This record gives sequence, structure tokens and C-alpha cells, in this order.
Amino acid sequence: MVDRTRIVVVGGMACGPKAAARARRCDPHAYITIVEQGTTVSEGSCGLPYYVGGQVSSRKELLIRTPKYFRDVSDIEVLTATRATRIHRDVRELEIVDLASGETSRLPYDKLVLATGATPTIPSALSGKDLAGVFTLTKLADADAILEELEHKSRQKGVVVGAGLIGMESVEALSARGLEVSLVEALDRVLPALLDPEMSLHVENELTTQGVRLFLGQKVTSLEGDDDGHVRRVITDTETIEADVVILALGYRPNVELGRDAGLTIGETGGLAVNEYLQTNDPDIYAGGDCVENIHRVSGRRILAPMGSTANKHGRIIGTNITGGCESFPGVLGTTIVKVFDMNVARLGLTETEAQQAGFSPVLSLIPGYDRASYYPGAQTITVRLIADNATGRVLGGQIVGKGDAAKRTDVLVTTISLDGTVDDIANLDLAYSPPFNGAMDVLHHAANVIRNKRSGQARSVSPAEINDRICRGEDFVLLDVRSEQEWKDAHIDACQCKLIPLNKLRESVSSLPKDARIVTLCRTSIRAYQAQRMLEGEGFKDVCFMDGSIMAWPYAVTCSSK
Amino acid sequence: MVDRTRIVVVGGMACGPKAAARARRCDPHAYITIVEQGTTVSEGSCGLPYYVGGQVSSRKELLIRTPKYFRDVSDIEVLTATRATRIHRDVRELEIVDLASGETSRLPYDKLVLATGATPTIPSALSGKDLAGVFTLTKLADADAILEELEHKSRQKGVVVGAGLIGMESVEALSARGLEVSLVEALDRVLPALLDPEMSLHVENELTTQGVRLFLGQKVTSLEGDDDGHVRRVITDTETIEADVVILALGYRPNVELGRDAGLTIGETGGLAVNEYLQTNDPDIYAGGDCVENIHRVSGRRILAPMGSTANKHGRIIGTNITGGCESFPGVLGTTIVKVFDMNVARLGLTETEAQQAGFSPVLSLIPGYDRASYYPGAQTITVRLIADNATGRVLGGQIVGKGDAAKRTDVLVTTISLDGTVDDIANLDLAYSPPFNGAMDVLHHAANVIRNKRSGQARSVSPAEINDRICRGEDFVLLDVRSEQEWKDAHIDACQCKLIPLNKLRESVSSLPKDARIVTLCRTSIRAYQAQRMLEGEGFKDVCFMDGSIMAWPYAVTCSSK
Repeated sequence: MVDRTRIVVVGGMACGPKAAARARRCDPHAYITIVEQGTTVSEGSCGLPYYVGGQVSSRKELLIRTPKYFRDVSDIEVLTATRATRIHRDVRELEIVDLASGETSRLPYDKLVLATGATPTIPSALSGKDLAGVFTLTKLADADAILEELEHKSRQKGVVVGAGLIGMESVEALSARGLEVSLVEALDRVLPALLDPEMSLHVENELTTQGVRLFLGQKVTSLEGDDDGHVRRVITDTETIEADVVILALGYRPNVELGRDAGLTIGETGGLAVNEYLQTNDPDIYAGGDCVENIHRVSGRRILAPMGSTANKHGRIIGTNITGGCESFPGVLGTTIVKVFDMNVARLGLTETEAQQAGFSPVLSLIPGYDRASYYPGAQTITVRLIADNATGRVLGGQIVGKGDAAKRTDVLVTTISLDGTVDDIANLDLAYSPPFNGAMDVLHHAANVIRNKRSGQARSVSPAEINDRICRGEDFVLLDVRSEQEWKDAHIDACQCKLIPLNKLRESVSSLPKDARIVTLCRTSIRAYQAQRMLEGEGFKDVCFMDGSIMAWPYAVTCSSK
Repeated sequence: MVDRTRIVVVGGMACGPKAAARARRCDPHAYITIVEQGTTVSEGSCGLPYYVGGQVSSRKELLIRTPKYFRDVSDIEVLTATRATRIHRDVRELEIVDLASGETSRLPYDKLVLATGATPTIPSALSGKDLAGVFTLTKLADADAILEELEHKSRQKGVVVGAGLIGMESVEALSARGLEVSLVEALDRVLPALLDPEMSLHVENELTTQGVRLFLGQKVTSLEGDDDGHVRRVITDTETIEADVVILALGYRPNVELGRDAGLTIGETGGLAVNEYLQTNDPDIYAGGDCVENIHRVSGRRILAPMGSTANKHGRIIGTNITGGCESFPGVLGTTIVKVFDMNVARLGLTETEAQQAGFSPVLSLIPGYDRASYYPGAQTITVRLIADNATGRVLGGQIVGKGDAAKRTDVLVTTISLDGTVDDIANLDLAYSPPFNGAMDVLHHAANVIRNKRSGQARSVSPAEINDRICRGEDFVLLDVRSEQEWKDAHIDACQCKLIPLNKLRESVSSLPKDARIVTLCRTSIRAYQAQRMLEGEGFKDVCFMDGSIMAWPYAVTCSSK
């Protein structure tokens, strides 16, 4: 008789079921039990905002697997409405309580898996947080409740608190349901944890265009309700915002109580600490998904990265390792992508600030361009902010925004960074080219080449933010726009420093510029601006650089003088 | 006085202008001249099929730069309608002839760049090749002539000869213009140089669905015309195909005559031989674009890879190196992508056959799946054929077909191979996940994991082609379909070996299968089929494997028994 391993998994959402199913494929004889406190398992929780927004019409589509499926197909026992209350590590038993009957019992285990997930953060001091009409959005039950609330025709004003990923998706969902939406964020910009400031501005422009009211740099102090106990107002330190429905999207904290009470190590991020095999400090207890902390592959630091994609990878590795295998998890890049109305917004690796904090000396490029051949129908623009280490050329991170295909470039950069690639590597990637799919040079090729030009000393640039500051400060410099007159009329930067000399006239007009002038060139995408920089340097100008990203990546106001 | 380098570039399409423009940015003082035998430069020739098809409406959009632009902006002289006839290497002079006047002259050079491109192959023995209505499609003038031809309402039948990239694009272009289109290919399948045979079948199915008549394995012996000298029939070794318009898409041969006559080395592929700096055997003569041969980054072999994307990369490197820089080109992966009506078809790296020829022991996976969350609106399927080296796990190549986003996965694989990545690396890539962009596990994650399972001995599979052969041969085995009854009714493989036992019934039905049976499991995508393999092995079955890709990747006929 084979000695059958007893595997107990706590948590039935993403990592848990994946670990159980993988364990079954690796070990046909193990006893495997999943303990889940809710009544469903394997919810497609990342799809919830799209269920609320109506893009996903069927609730059923978000219920990926049933307990019966696990039983019939994988011989995995699923105990729903059952809470794990205590780990008895000395005897290797998990104490559980049947939430319906209140009965407690113990499950013996050889290997225990903690996939306990994370809980949305709600400040305990926030008054009004329990009013009707106030929600978080992490479970199917939350979505059901929000949809029920929205059935009332009188619910017209939605307020989302928190401008992170779930906040963005919630804004779009409420907007898709016809609500007037306001977005409140304590920091001074949207997606503050994900993007460098200039990139946030592009997203804010899209939100504003779509009619979303932004309340940035404002801390919510309380929620106020009516006599029926229904929320009516969101109060910030400076504003009162009317609200019929409020979604709190203030981030997550990992559910570590069960592990902590059993003496498992909690990391400084607040997540369960695990080694590369996703093992806790108890070698018989593994943990994965939203409840653990991850290693960032670039900075080497521990971070929380609660993502369904990571949870699935964790699950597979745990399933392998608890059945005798030995696989390690290399860590994450903090990759995130989010659709914000018509704009795709992605980031991966380190931001400029994070790169500096991690001890790198970052060098950047900011490149707008088309996602396929510019002449091919449907071509859309994207703007890539690529960040590399100036010392080595190693790629450190990237941020991409635009209506075009940001996901492809994100995944190319993910792959590059994961394999320790440099900007030189990117520059010669034989990426797939045909007009319906790309230009002959991908935007990433350009982005890498600009960094190479900067590292070699050929290209010199300043950021849009710095130019905006210089304009606001009234500094003396020439902002030399080298586009055509028509392009200028369509949109230009309205500043006294700005001067138009189309590139094809620049060579003959050089004498009109004082040789000691401080010149910053710009065009539409920076290609001509860089040419102008090189041309002027060739003519003996000493202080010339171009503006990163030029007009297409300029997130501030422009003036139109056509017609 | 600075000593100004004299740079002469032969060829004004992609590599040449890029080399010239880059040289100018690196050296503001060089004399730079481009010699082009045509009357235009910088044609966006990859867009020609879409101009013929009508997706690109304006001819102007394909003329990216004018000679005047080069002169005014970059101080580059462009001599159009001028042919380079001889290189006098001893005195470093290029002999040219003005095609209008017939006058010859000599251009002295310090550095010479050959970017002479390639010419479409037309078998000299093919009778009727000069009939009216017979075209190739590589220049704007070709497209203009085809469009003029199509203005005749009587032109209703189009025949494309050659089922490579340009052949595919030509088929779609003629079809978009309302013609009945036939495709003739001497080999027995479409895209024979690019795909493994099973993948070609998927493309053939799409072509047939779109109404294209396929004549595969047929060699064109002659073209026949009417009394007016206009083509009317394409004659193959077995068929006569009516034709009003014929596009010959039989590949390219590199234009190397100028170089060969000057004693430059020609490689065994027929392209100009260059070193990693894109230098010919004359250190003052560089060459790039379609006229040179490239190194394949995986096989290390020399190949021809005439692509606009490669030409641009060559151009930049040459521009750097002829102005004192030192940059090397790492080679290509033979990446290609082509839209075939509603299907996207891509390949990169080595095919299975090429991998074997290069001395690898390839291990494969064939994975169908959705390009984003299956429940998200617009989700489409793709099928990935991933090829790795069994000895090391190194990724060697990939092929992707389907209506979904093939380009993203192609570029991820390109990056992986370029950085010597393995299937283990792919499995844990932190790719961007959010329902509008991907599933929690990308198809590539699955594809890599299946190869990992095969390498560890857990997963065993056979290819659809082998199953089809076994069925045709009437072999004795059980083709065990583990999908639901409804799925079976919708589409199943009609063979006496096929047996339905839904996966959730399999555990209880195990006794109905003889223990010594040869069993091949299948489902929709292979996920359940692999589970079934593992389950049956756990129950003591010794000869079980699953069919790669299952029903979704099955390119042969299926039977529907619904209603």
C-alpha cells in the first residue's frame, strides 16, 4: 500500500485551486483538500469590474470551477463555508470550523498550503464606511451588491476613492453604467504607485476627457449618509462630493493572521515570508498568492504584488514542490496593465524614482509612435517611457500609455528584463514586422536607440516636466519647434520661449539663432527634434538638446491656431 | 579645415536612406550621396499589398521621404534615375550612369554602402511571363500597374503563383478588390518555407473558408494569353486555371551583380557576404538590406531574410560604422508575420524540421487558447506551436496562427530566443495581465509548461498529424474524447477509434477501458486531456498519451451531430 500524502490547501480562489490541481497531476494518490470560507471557489475576480460595467454579461462566466468539478475530475475535496482557524504545527493539523453549523474539527496534513489572499484596506477610522451604498470590489458578492444598488434609477453619482488599478477599473465600470463619476486620490496624481508623474498626467487627461471629475491630493475624511443610512456625500479635507454610490479602492492587506498566529514569519511588507520554493519558515507549510510577499527581480527588494497571474504561477510551483518536486519562483517585475476607457496603461520593472532608490543611475527615453504601420487602418499611438541603467545599459523598467497596443511592448520589456537584457539587445530584436502589426522599426527599437544615443553622448534631452517648469519660471531659452507650419497651427506650446523654424528651413535659418543660445528642440515625436539637435551642434551651437517625446508626449496644454 | 568623409550609398529604399540619415546624425560634416536607379526613394514597399487591396487609400502615404527632404533636412544628395554600374575599388570610385541622358561619371568615396535590394524571381523559362496582366509586386510602380489593370471590370479571376508571404498578401489584396482568387504553389502546402506542415493546414483552412481556390503541389508550366497578348490561363502540370490577372510571388534573389563584379564575396545563399559589422571583404565597402545574407541567431547558419525591419537595423549599424563607430549586428530569427484574411500567422526561429537539421533534439507543444480573458468581449483564439531543445530547454522557435493576437506572443518569443531563454524562463515571465489584455496564464505560459511536463516525463503526447495517419491506417487504439456530450455533438473527430467519456465521468468509468489499451486522450485545448492522461496513469494504465492541441488545434475534418 502506497503511503498517501495528505495535502490541505487553505483558500479556494486562484493560487489554492491551482496548487491542488497541479499536486493532483503530479501525485495521483495524494489526499487533497481545499478549505474555503466562502461558498464559491475559483472566482475570476479580475473580471469583476467588467461584470459591474456590463462588458461581461454573465455571472456564470466568472465562476471558473465548481467544488463538484474538483471532486469529480481531480478527486480533490473542497470544503466551502469552512474557515481555517488555527494551525497546530506540532501535530501537523489544521483546525477548521464549519460556518453553517459552527462545528470545529481538525484536518491532519503532511503539507499545508496557505493561499489566504488579501483583504481590501478600509481605514478603521473612516466614519460612514458602513453606510449603505459603500462598497469594495474584490468578490463576486461585492459585484452582485453593486449591481443591485445600481438598479435604483436614482443612483446617478458615483465616487471612487483611490486611483490605483481597481480604482481605475471601478471608475470605468460605473461610467459604463451611466453614472457621473468622481475619483478621489490622496496623492497628487493617478496611479501614483505605478507611474512616473509625467505618465500619470496622460492618464488624467484621458479621465478628464471621458468626463471623470478628478479630486487629486485630497484625503477622504468621512462619508456622510441620509436618514435612511445611505451614503450621500464624500467629504475630503477640502471638498464635499455628492455620492449615491461609493467604491473604496484603497489597496489590499495580505491575510496573514492564520500564519502569524502559528508563528510563521511575516515580512516587512506585511506579507507572509517565503523562500524561493514558496516555503514558509515551517518546511511543511507553503504559501502563495496575494498573502505572500514577492521578490522584485530588478531591485531585489520584497514587495507585495497581489495579481491573479502571479497567484497562478505560485500555485503551480507549490503543487510541484509539495509532491516531491523542486521548482523555484524567480520573483516578479510588478507588471501591471489597465484599460482606462480608450487608453491602455502599463508599467513594469522600476519607475525612475524606484530605480534611483535601488541605487541605479537611470537613463530614460520617452518615445511616442504608432503601434503598427502609420498608414495602416486603425493605427493608434502609444508613448513608451523606457528606463535603463546608465552604467550598464541594462533595462530597468518601462511605462507605456496610449490608445494603441501597449500590451505587446510591455511583454517584450518583461521578457527583456527577466533575461537581463540591455538596450543594445532591444535595438536589434528581430520583432515581427508587417504593416498590420507594426512599423519596420518598433517603438521599442526607437526607445532603445535613443537611450543608446544618450549613453554615447550623441543625444541630449530634457523632460516635458522640466520644460514646463522652465516656461512657468519664465526662464530664458529657445524652445525651437521644427515641425511644419501646418503642424504648428494644429497644436503648439503657447509660450514666449517657443519659436517655429521648420526642419527643412533650419539649415538656412541658422544665422537667425544666436550661437550662445540655450536651445531645446521639439517636433512631433522627437525624431526631427533630435536631427535638429545634431544639425545645430554641427553648426557650432554648444547648448542644444531636444525635448523628450516632443508634442505627442507633452501632457500639458497646447494651443490650436488653425482656422 | 576638417577632412570631410565622402560617403556614397547605392540604393534609396530602406537600408540605404537609413544608413545615410544615421551617418549624417553621427557626422555633421560628411559628404553623403545616395544613388537610386528609380525615380522615388524611401517607398514603404511593405505596404504595397494593402494599397492594392484598398486598405491604404493614398499612394502618398507610401512615399515616406522625398529627395528634397534628404537635401533640405539632412544635407544628403540624392541622385535618382541614376544607376551604379561599376565599383573601382583600386581608386575608390563608383561609376554611375544618368539614365535620362546616358551620361556616365564617377563618384569618389571613402566609404561605400551597397543597399541594392533584391529582385523578384521569375523563372526565365516560364513562357507567357511577359503577357499583359502578369505582375510582380515589389515596387510602387507594380502596384500602380495592378490597380490600373483592375479598373477593367472584366478582370474577375486572379491567380497568385507562390504561397509565401507576398503570395498570401497578394491573395488577400485581389480578393479585397472583388476578384475570385486562385493560389498555386509548387510545394504541397502554403507557407512551406515558414511553417511546419500542421500549421500550414490551418492557414489553408482559412484560405478555403474565404473562397480562395488552392492548387497545391502544382508547378506552373506556362502562362497563356489571348490574341491581344493578355494573360488568360495559368497552366500547371495538372490543371488549367483561368486568369485575368496574375501575380508572380516566387521569392527574391539578392541584387549582388555590382558587388560581385567588383570582386566582393558572395555567400552560399547568393547574398553578399558581410561580417558582423556589415562590412564586405573590402573594409571600405559595407552592405545591408535585402542584398546581403544574415546569420540565423539559433542555427548559426547564413540565410536570406529580406525584410524591411532588418534593412532598417542594418542601415543604422552601417551609418554608425562608416562614421567611426563600431556596432555589430547579432543576426536574425527569420521572424515573419502575415495577415491572411481574418487569421494572423507568425513564425520565428527554427521550425521542427530546421531544428532537427541544425542538430537539436526538438521537443514541442501545441497549445490553443484565448488571446485575452475568455470571458472578455472580443476574445479570440490563437494556437501556439512552441519548439525547444530537449537537452537544455532552450527555446528554438515558435509558430502562431489564429484570429487572436499572435504578434504579442511572437515578439515575446523573439525576445526570449534572442536572450537565450528557456521554457523555464517563459513559464515564470511576469507578463501583463488584466482581462482586456490576457488571461491570468498566457498561452505561452501553458505552452512552456507543457514542454516542461514533457521534459520531466510527466506529459506524453502525439501530434494531430500522427493521429490522423493512425486513423487513416485503421490502427487499433482508443481516441478518448473527455469533453462533455454537448461539446462532442458540436464537433468531434469521426473515427471508429474515437470514444466519448466526459472527464467528470472518467474516474468511475475506468473499468470500461481495458488496462492494456493504447489510449490517446483529447479535449478542447488539451488541458483536460492531460488531466485524463495523468488520471489513467494513476489508475495503472501503461500506454496513455494526449493529442497535442486537441480539437481546437485539429486541422482536419470534424463532424457535427447537433440537431
